[in-house]
Amino acid sequence: MKIIAARKLLKANDQLAEENRARLDAAGVFCVNVVGSPGAGKTTLLEALFATVAGRVKPAVIEGDIAGSLDAERIAKLGVPVVQINTEGACHLDANMIAAALGSLDYDAVDVLFIENVGNLVCTAGFDLGEHLRIVVLSTSEGDDKAAKYPAIFQGSDALVITKADLLPHTNFNADRITADMKRLAPNAEIFQVAALRGDGIVATADWLVQKLSSGR
Amino acid sequence: MKIIAARKLLKANDQLAEENRARLDAAGVFCVNVVGSPGAGKTTLLEALFATVAGRVKPAVIEGDIAGSLDAERIAKLGVPVVQINTEGACHLDANMIAAALGSLDYDAVDVLFIENVGNLVCTAGFDLGEHLRIVVLSTSEGDDKAAKYPAIFQGSDALVITKADLLPHTNFNADRITADMKRLAPNAEIFQVAALRGDGIVATADWLVQKLSSGR
Repeated sequence: MKIIAARKLLKANDQLAEENRARLDAAGVFCVNVVGSPGAGKTTLLEALFATVAGRVKPAVIEGDIAGSLDAERIAKLGVPVVQINTEGACHLDANMIAAALGSLDYDAVDVLFIENVGNLVCTAGFDLGEHLRIVVLSTSEGDDKAAKYPAIFQGSDALVITKADLLPHTNFNADRITADMKRLAPNAEIFQVAALRGDGIVATADWLVQKLSSGR
Repeated sequence: MKIIAARKLLKANDQLAEENRARLDAAGVFCVNVVGSPGAGKTTLLEALFATVAGRVKPAVIEGDIAGSLDAERIAKLGVPVVQINTEGACHLDANMIAAALGSLDYDAVDVLFIENVGNLVCTAGFDLGEHLRIVVLSTSEGDDKAAKYPAIFQGSDALVITKADLLPHTNFNADRITADMKRLAPNAEIFQVAALRGDGIVATADWLVQKLSSGR
């Protein structure tokens, strides 16, 4: 695990994102930007996906956090290569931070690179990192009104993964409501419902990702 | 309910925050800034508190949201005066937005003004709104590692309200861990644990607020 301190933006974000994407394409690495609120279950989703795709694909992770490396340590325990970016207060990752982290990756050992963004349902929406897919993660315990209240991040995502489905009996979350909002905001997005700790829905999500990976690079 | 579109910052935030505080002090209104992730349960906490303090204090609310007025509609149903600020994409409220909203308040009808900030555990930390107290709301379902990962917002808060305690049996949330982190980051902060939908812990939280209100203005 390496730790990189975020530096100031050196180039316009979109230009750098395109450069990142070209670099990933040239290396044959498919890249997925994972966004969502603090505590939505992004790291736990990655842990469950990695257990399911083991042997089929070679994942790596860039972890974005304000401070510390708690999530990167969880990923490293799985034997998955991980680079930690500490944003030092910044509320989202940007393409410049990713460009710096890409230099630390052994491309030969990686098929698919997951970028776990800072927990933030607002600011992460505006920054293309050079990914091929963006997945927004929303937990049932956050409530079914979040797409209506934070539309931008749902609008720009290729899939919605509803996590913590095991909490459904204990919440007033209505999956029909968020599904209707998501269909309106992002009609082509896939919607998955998972309970990552017990494995529900993980195979379907993993299969979709592997299919995207196969067709996307 | 009034809806105000956020305008650009006209003055430095801190100066405007002091002006807001002076204006509130002159009017005898105690102001509480409520921050937390999307879906932490900020609105539900306010609903429960208002039911408990009914007759003892006269509350009002400024609701900050990226889009829409879902939360303001919930507050208005309780007969509590509410002003909706739509930030139109901005990730936090600032003192200028609050200054605009204060003009819509009938100060004679208000003892305590709650500002429900945009759901964001990062960006809201940096903006004094002119409040007297800041409360950070964290739900058990978000995980006990959040103070370690997002220290700034916990550090600057006068109280931590841990919500959704009814989900504790269904999560791996360890209250001792977040309490230890909070004691380190904000040694003088109060910590409450509530299950707002069924009322647990609300009386203690409300009593503390009423006592702060009595001594604070």
